[in-house]
Amino acid sequence: MLRTHTCGELRKSDVGHEVTLAGWVQRIRDKGSLLWIDLRDRYGITQLFLEDGKSDKLLVAKVRELGREYVIQITGTVTERSSKNDKIPTGEIEVVPSAIEILNTSKVPPFTIEDNTDGGDDLRMKYRYIDLRRKMVADNLHLRHKMAQQTRSYLDSQNFIEVETPVLIKSTPEGARDFVVPSRMNEGEFYALPQSPQTFKQLLMVSGFDRYYQIVRCFRDEDLRADRQPEFTQIDCEMAFVTQEDVLNTFEGLIRHLFKKVKNIEIPPLPRMSFQEAMEKYGSDKPDTRFGMEFCDFTQLSKGKNFQVFDQAEIIIGINATGCASYTRKQLDELTDFVRKPQIGAKGLVYIKYETDGSIKSSVDKFYTNDDLKSWMETADAKPGDLILVLAGETRQTRNALNELRLLMGDKLGLRDHNTFNALWVIDFPLLEWSDDTKRFHAMHHPFTSPKKEDIKLLDSDPAKVRANAYDMVINGTEVGGGSIRIHDRATQQLMFRHLGFSEEEAKQQFGFLLDAFEFGAPPHGGIAFGFDRLCSLFGGSESIRDFIAFPKNNAGRDVMIDTPSAISQEQLDELKISVKKK
Amino acid sequence: MLRTHTCGELRKSDVGHEVTLAGWVQRIRDKGSLLWIDLRDRYGITQLFLEDGKSDKLLVAKVRELGREYVIQITGTVTERSSKNDKIPTGEIEVVPSAIEILNTSKVPPFTIEDNTDGGDDLRMKYRYIDLRRKMVADNLHLRHKMAQQTRSYLDSQNFIEVETPVLIKSTPEGARDFVVPSRMNEGEFYALPQSPQTFKQLLMVSGFDRYYQIVRCFRDEDLRADRQPEFTQIDCEMAFVTQEDVLNTFEGLIRHLFKKVKNIEIPPLPRMSFQEAMEKYGSDKPDTRFGMEFCDFTQLSKGKNFQVFDQAEIIIGINATGCASYTRKQLDELTDFVRKPQIGAKGLVYIKYETDGSIKSSVDKFYTNDDLKSWMETADAKPGDLILVLAGETRQTRNALNELRLLMGDKLGLRDHNTFNALWVIDFPLLEWSDDTKRFHAMHHPFTSPKKEDIKLLDSDPAKVRANAYDMVINGTEVGGGSIRIHDRATQQLMFRHLGFSEEEAKQQFGFLLDAFEFGAPPHGGIAFGFDRLCSLFGGSESIRDFIAFPKNNAGRDVMIDTPSAISQEQLDELKISVKKK
Repeated sequence: MLRTHTCGELRKSDVGHEVTLAGWVQRIRDKGSLLWIDLRDRYGITQLFLEDGKSDKLLVAKVRELGREYVIQITGTVTERSSKNDKIPTGEIEVVPSAIEILNTSKVPPFTIEDNTDGGDDLRMKYRYIDLRRKMVADNLHLRHKMAQQTRSYLDSQNFIEVETPVLIKSTPEGARDFVVPSRMNEGEFYALPQSPQTFKQLLMVSGFDRYYQIVRCFRDEDLRADRQPEFTQIDCEMAFVTQEDVLNTFEGLIRHLFKKVKNIEIPPLPRMSFQEAMEKYGSDKPDTRFGMEFCDFTQLSKGKNFQVFDQAEIIIGINATGCASYTRKQLDELTDFVRKPQIGAKGLVYIKYETDGSIKSSVDKFYTNDDLKSWMETADAKPGDLILVLAGETRQTRNALNELRLLMGDKLGLRDHNTFNALWVIDFPLLEWSDDTKRFHAMHHPFTSPKKEDIKLLDSDPAKVRANAYDMVINGTEVGGGSIRIHDRATQQLMFRHLGFSEEEAKQQFGFLLDAFEFGAPPHGGIAFGFDRLCSLFGGSESIRDFIAFPKNNAGRDVMIDTPSAISQEQLDELKISVKKK
Repeated sequence: MLRTHTCGELRKSDVGHEVTLAGWVQRIRDKGSLLWIDLRDRYGITQLFLEDGKSDKLLVAKVRELGREYVIQITGTVTERSSKNDKIPTGEIEVVPSAIEILNTSKVPPFTIEDNTDGGDDLRMKYRYIDLRRKMVADNLHLRHKMAQQTRSYLDSQNFIEVETPVLIKSTPEGARDFVVPSRMNEGEFYALPQSPQTFKQLLMVSGFDRYYQIVRCFRDEDLRADRQPEFTQIDCEMAFVTQEDVLNTFEGLIRHLFKKVKNIEIPPLPRMSFQEAMEKYGSDKPDTRFGMEFCDFTQLSKGKNFQVFDQAEIIIGINATGCASYTRKQLDELTDFVRKPQIGAKGLVYIKYETDGSIKSSVDKFYTNDDLKSWMETADAKPGDLILVLAGETRQTRNALNELRLLMGDKLGLRDHNTFNALWVIDFPLLEWSDDTKRFHAMHHPFTSPKKEDIKLLDSDPAKVRANAYDMVINGTEVGGGSIRIHDRATQQLMFRHLGFSEEEAKQQFGFLLDAFEFGAPPHGGIAFGFDRLCSLFGGSESIRDFIAFPKNNAGRDVMIDTPSAISQEQLDELKISVKKK
């Protein structure tokens, strides 16, 4: 080893010992006769100290040659500091070098290696290897490491077996777009990269492995929204001989284990909320339950008073922004502008102020009496000083818009603290979802999710009403994981494919192996997958998954550091028997 | 849970308890009035017992409907067996069912679910999910799981951090052929799948992560030999601030930990052998050191006696097959045929029998006196009863052929037991290797391996002589891992690229990010990668890595179960802006 100790290790008890350290020059302070160097490695920072006149002249000269981020190896004696630094664990000591070797020089880095760096996003991505030196970024990767270790530790303790599934698999049109890989040995044919190991983990259940997991890379060739990556990591799990309740309990156990071991937080048992209830109370299947502000339904109360907007609306719902009656006209206008944004899509915003003096003022005073509005206040459980914000329109869109408004108000009122965690299960999802684009039903979760037994009879008459044995784990308004009890018999799976518009031929060609497998003793089974990047960012108190990935891609799917994707040679194309269309 | 216990769990102490089990019907024995069922799950086999006349009639009728591999759930009472089976842990008890539910039926499986199955390779691969039910195959995956867990446990204890590196990277022409992935968002451009995370792990060292590991999927689009897979798994590791000796010690620690924890075997510290010595003594850089039979050099002794074959040979070497003097003419002819095979490439085989009576007989009696041959016997440390086998010719080819012959004789003499393990390090590999195909030097390990300081001066004058700071771990004649101390400065890396025939432009285009990174404070570093599939098969006492991969591909790179690679739709091709050339 080029060192006897790390830069985070030395304490007062080491005073007097000769040590060798190696690391990066974080900072040099040269006060003429006194010189300090902060030497940094993965484990911490140790201060080096030299005195011009006392220390060896050549040594002092050498120190004056050093620059930021030089890599050096020093040998010296641990001494007690005269002025201690209680902010770092090594703050009681410093090392007085007797020898310094420059292991490598460094050009001046393109940005500062500090938490508040002066480097912009693009620059930091291009020099990601320097960006990763910043403590907050390195800490994220250490957190991720710990999350992975603790995930495995818990699942091991529950008898899960880790099995690696293939990355070169088969393209299937259902779901998102696949990345494909031309096969040289099988001319004109392609592999696909997995969007998840779904069918393989189900086959492992058919094989009898009983409890499987894998922390596994998955791929999706979708247009990238702000926080999507073309490759991402899942904690992928499956269990046999279980009911939905068993799966929920097992993975509730996982998340509570992670909070305990990684953040030393005891979170309470996870409540369960039906999809229906989540939509009614929060307008979202991933409600942020760190705060209340549940939806109030004013539909019955507010109709028939000649307010056309409300009379024509399918639904009239609102939230109580407690303590916001003092909002100014300007603030209210801003809220109105917000809900009118195209991506929110409301037509307008109605407000009712319950003033602290007990009076009520609203934007709909023309249509409603004071008594009318009083009854609204009761419905909203409003107290003097509160502000009620109301939207009206078509059910789905109005709920969606009010959800966005609720989250905005949560932010404004400081109710969405990154260090508060509120987890729950959302259950009883619909099995199918109508698509206006394709004019057919799609699987809301995926085609392998089982319908609730009692709802199967509705498949033909009222498919949208059929509920699935599907569940999502939601933390702080983020879906961190989702899964289902699967179909495990050929007949039901074929029924499902039929309802999704697969011809018998298509079903057989794409999923014949799974249908076959179901005929050779497939046990009841179900599972879940967690978005690992997302889970890490949530634990790290960040909104961005990119900060928790060592080498992420940008929104165009590019790695700007290594500059990929890039052109490949004609020889490669020829060998693969493919050609690129001219632009 | 659909069970209270697993099929491997019940013991005599459970007698009298009511339990629920779930699993597969492994076997039914119906002796008329007495019926036994072997119920199997991942954890073991439990015997169920019914008595016609005593047990419920409907229950008995139901049992008679069951077939092999049906999935059932039973509730019943644990009773002590009258005739115990001490071969299985549950052999003291059986369960008398009071209720049986068929969870799923099964068609008759296409082959028997036994260690010695009647299913051929192709059939088993097509129905891999059934093949994985066989205990010996399932055991392999359990072994693999344990290997992964213990690898992580050791590396964690050594402060390694697990970092995930990208799968969608950049194609580089050096080394094996890349799999490529067309980018839809970057028209005409491609990602490549990594052959290893080499450059990324080096960048992590530049970032200061110090000790990195990852159990990671890698890809190589090569024509598949018997035991190669297009996707395979590596234990990939890198360390900073280390010498070669530190890396060897750390990973010697890993392999000894694995042997101890997984197989409960204490292996001795690993000896180190130079590449030169390995080639001289064993004719291979991955010598099987479970047995001696080292090469003897007869070149000096045997020249100048008018035996033209030897006189014209560059090298004359042999092995002592102890106790084989009694080999018949037929046996010797078989050995001669073996070494003459094109893939072995020797022209002929010379033998000298040291008969038990002290006399010497050889195939070269014409040219050598008894005294000549006596001195050969001394060189070979032969005793009466031994057989000396000698090959002659060009050095490299002759060593290679004698290596094959040595391994064959090791097999014949039972010296290559799968349950004996002999590990060593082979070190001091040449840096470069001449290719007759491309008429240039290639990196023997890879372009990032550092030359030995004292040999750099030979790079221009005698490149083949330059030794690298490279090392392989070899166990039982298999290279299980290899690595090197890397170059960590731009000048040396550029020098290396130049010697490998890269123009400055090419080097910059392909590896510019690494060359840049070396200018921003890159620490000295080195690492290793182990072939995880191979390591598992070695630990499992098998020659085939395919048996240790859940869903392997065949020699044509196909997964015959899911039937991939396969054609993709014209829409997919159009979106990717590529076309497939007509055959």
